[in-house]
Amino acid sequence: MRTPPSLLSLTIDSAVINLSNITDLSPLPDHILIDLFLRTLRAGKLTERVLKLFIATGKDEVHSLIQALNIQVIVTPVLPTKIKDDEIDIVIGAVSSDMTSFLNEWRPIFSRFHLIIVKDPDLKEELKIPEGFNLDVYTKSDIDRVVGSSTSILFSGYSCRYFGYLVSLKKYIISVDDDCLPARDNKGFLVDAVAQHITNLTNPATPFFFNTLYDPFSEGADFVRGYPFSLRSGVKCALSCGLWLNLADHDAPTQALKTRQRNSRYVDAVITVPARALAPISGINIAFDREVVGPALVPALRLAGEGKFRWETMEDIWSGMCVKVVCDHLGLGVKSGLPYVWRTDRGDAISSLKKEWEGVKLMEEVVPFFQSVRLPRTATTAEDCVVEVAKAVKEQLGSTDPVFARAAGAMLDWVKLWKSVGSSSSPPGV
Amino acid sequence: MRTPPSLLSLTIDSAVINLSNITDLSPLPDHILIDLFLRTLRAGKLTERVLKLFIATGKDEVHSLIQALNIQVIVTPVLPTKIKDDEIDIVIGAVSSDMTSFLNEWRPIFSRFHLIIVKDPDLKEELKIPEGFNLDVYTKSDIDRVVGSSTSILFSGYSCRYFGYLVSLKKYIISVDDDCLPARDNKGFLVDAVAQHITNLTNPATPFFFNTLYDPFSEGADFVRGYPFSLRSGVKCALSCGLWLNLADHDAPTQALKTRQRNSRYVDAVITVPARALAPISGINIAFDREVVGPALVPALRLAGEGKFRWETMEDIWSGMCVKVVCDHLGLGVKSGLPYVWRTDRGDAISSLKKEWEGVKLMEEVVPFFQSVRLPRTATTAEDCVVEVAKAVKEQLGSTDPVFARAAGAMLDWVKLWKSVGSSSSPPGV
Repeated sequence: MRTPPSLLSLTIDSAVINLSNITDLSPLPDHILIDLFLRTLRAGKLTERVLKLFIATGKDEVHSLIQALNIQVIVTPVLPTKIKDDEIDIVIGAVSSDMTSFLNEWRPIFSRFHLIIVKDPDLKEELKIPEGFNLDVYTKSDIDRVVGSSTSILFSGYSCRYFGYLVSLKKYIISVDDDCLPARDNKGFLVDAVAQHITNLTNPATPFFFNTLYDPFSEGADFVRGYPFSLRSGVKCALSCGLWLNLADHDAPTQALKTRQRNSRYVDAVITVPARALAPISGINIAFDREVVGPALVPALRLAGEGKFRWETMEDIWSGMCVKVVCDHLGLGVKSGLPYVWRTDRGDAISSLKKEWEGVKLMEEVVPFFQSVRLPRTATTAEDCVVEVAKAVKEQLGSTDPVFARAAGAMLDWVKLWKSVGSSSSPPGV
Repeated sequence: MRTPPSLLSLTIDSAVINLSNITDLSPLPDHILIDLFLRTLRAGKLTERVLKLFIATGKDEVHSLIQALNIQVIVTPVLPTKIKDDEIDIVIGAVSSDMTSFLNEWRPIFSRFHLIIVKDPDLKEELKIPEGFNLDVYTKSDIDRVVGSSTSILFSGYSCRYFGYLVSLKKYIISVDDDCLPARDNKGFLVDAVAQHITNLTNPATPFFFNTLYDPFSEGADFVRGYPFSLRSGVKCALSCGLWLNLADHDAPTQALKTRQRNSRYVDAVITVPARALAPISGINIAFDREVVGPALVPALRLAGEGKFRWETMEDIWSGMCVKVVCDHLGLGVKSGLPYVWRTDRGDAISSLKKEWEGVKLMEEVVPFFQSVRLPRTATTAEDCVVEVAKAVKEQLGSTDPVFARAAGAMLDWVKLWKSVGSSSSPPGV
């Protein structure tokens, strides 16, 4: 014997049929909403519009369910219309050879864009790259051909990505380490890191006065009382530094000390780093306006014992100091915060400890130097500025450690390379 | 005829009886968890321990239910043990006379502490204050008695709270506007604003280098790679500026333009405002170390058309610039971010527009002044520093607008008052 359906059940069935006429589901009690959702799914009626209707209720239960069922919400492109997809290059340094899961995880976000993959010249294995991407791969032979032997710059390890910055022909570069996957936000939704970076870069930065409610250009935000109107138009943003969930970007001693610590705090904010304030800018998840500050992202500081883990490197931190000083001088902005990426666990911090101390010690010289360096007014481009910083490095730090003299040399070589290769570069393997 | 209970129902009943043996409820499916919670409640078995057991599941449904049923979670004191409750004064400026709902809402958080309520001297009605608080109320007659007539300082409107700062005998002051209520965090839990402010003040600040993962001293956080070890001990934090949900602290033009905009973004972060960076520090929700920077919180800038709405005032913004410059000079830190308060809607921004433009225009002079002012090395206390800032205000701004000359005078009078009243002040009405 079959139990007759309840009135509620019949009502929900009727709602499934009439979903196209419904514009707001939020007044429904949670359990009815969930029931309706599941029946809609079973009836094959979960279209994009209907999915959005459920999401718009803002109910946590619905969001959890969508996440649990792994329903892919179509990532809405929030790119400002003025930016075209072909103005963006995504540059990936391949430090590991198997890029299958990396690229597949990033597919919903990356597949619209042109990718530049630069293979670490130290890497012996062939790269494994899944189908379906618009990409160019550069290897040791391309690097040798373009750069030649007349430079002090080494493109090995994490520094290989800088070769991608060099040969790109696009206005914007987005670069993510190959051990990072797309993160999910507080609601469990996939973060579109590209869209967020481009939003950061195409909205003004506000380095001359700190807005306590964070990015005044983000949705629902504004400048707070007391913020001078003359500073509200802001300045061009040249660099966007994203953050990391799971494995945070700690140095080896911190990582070794707190082996089990993972970052789970999703801070829903973008901040302009104030003018004259320095920050440790990590290269793990960044984007920049290549036309404006490209030459200031420079692979210059190479540690003697540099290896293939982030905590064994300082090239990005040095480059970040350099680009921040250049931005401050040129009146450009640097933002930090969203988007997050999910950093997977890799390597053993304790075994890296011996190498890392060199980098840690160097920072005690590096930070006061960059805090005090001032560039002449005659330096009006990023190239000019890097040359001036290189001169100051040589003068003020050159005698303290040979690593600094080498960094100064590499910076000068980089500017030369940038000018000669620049937009005249040819595609790989040609 | 009664339907026999289901097996599930019997199991849940059994679980209610055996709750004392259960240490983890998180494996339970949501609907069973909710059922168990409701039956536990009905059975009168929802003790503090059991409540925590449910909360520990981290399930949004449970949190929503606790919130919906208005079950008061006992606020766990996160105050560092070294801070005693009697080292803290909570100062409230009473701009409205009926404080019943304000104090009742804050009761779970404020009731442990001594409160100083300063009645706006312009307010004619008697204050309505509910029972059960340890508080002193100061009125116009107390102000006249302590301050006398030999000062240019006006304690009317929002400036009345500064009188509380003056007569307090405590190390720490926490001050919240009387139109703010306790906020709830992303999980729906009551924010203990006092505990968060004290945490901010008693943990070091890091003004000399920006930590991209925000406050390195908060739980689960740390310094990122590249942060110099020599700067990791930080400096004493002197000022903690909290934020606002619902009605944000906008100026009248912004509020008038976006009448329906409300702030719903809960950003789970505390930031040290970098040295030399200025911010519009709102007085709505602040805490400070009175012994260290008390004299720098000064009611000096009074607009001609100042009224009883926040967006008609600039005293706190001016005072905030002053205290930031003093902190930078003395090597102290200023933090911004958590805790949030819930700001209730009040007043009509459009009608305030005429008055506000004065404040908005003044900021164009005020900000460049505070950005460029430098204090002499001989200024080693907050009092010294305020005197030096006052001198510079008089010299550099005095001729541009009479409001600045008056501000300079008020700053000098304030330092005199602070020294004479200081810790020798007597209780109200004596």
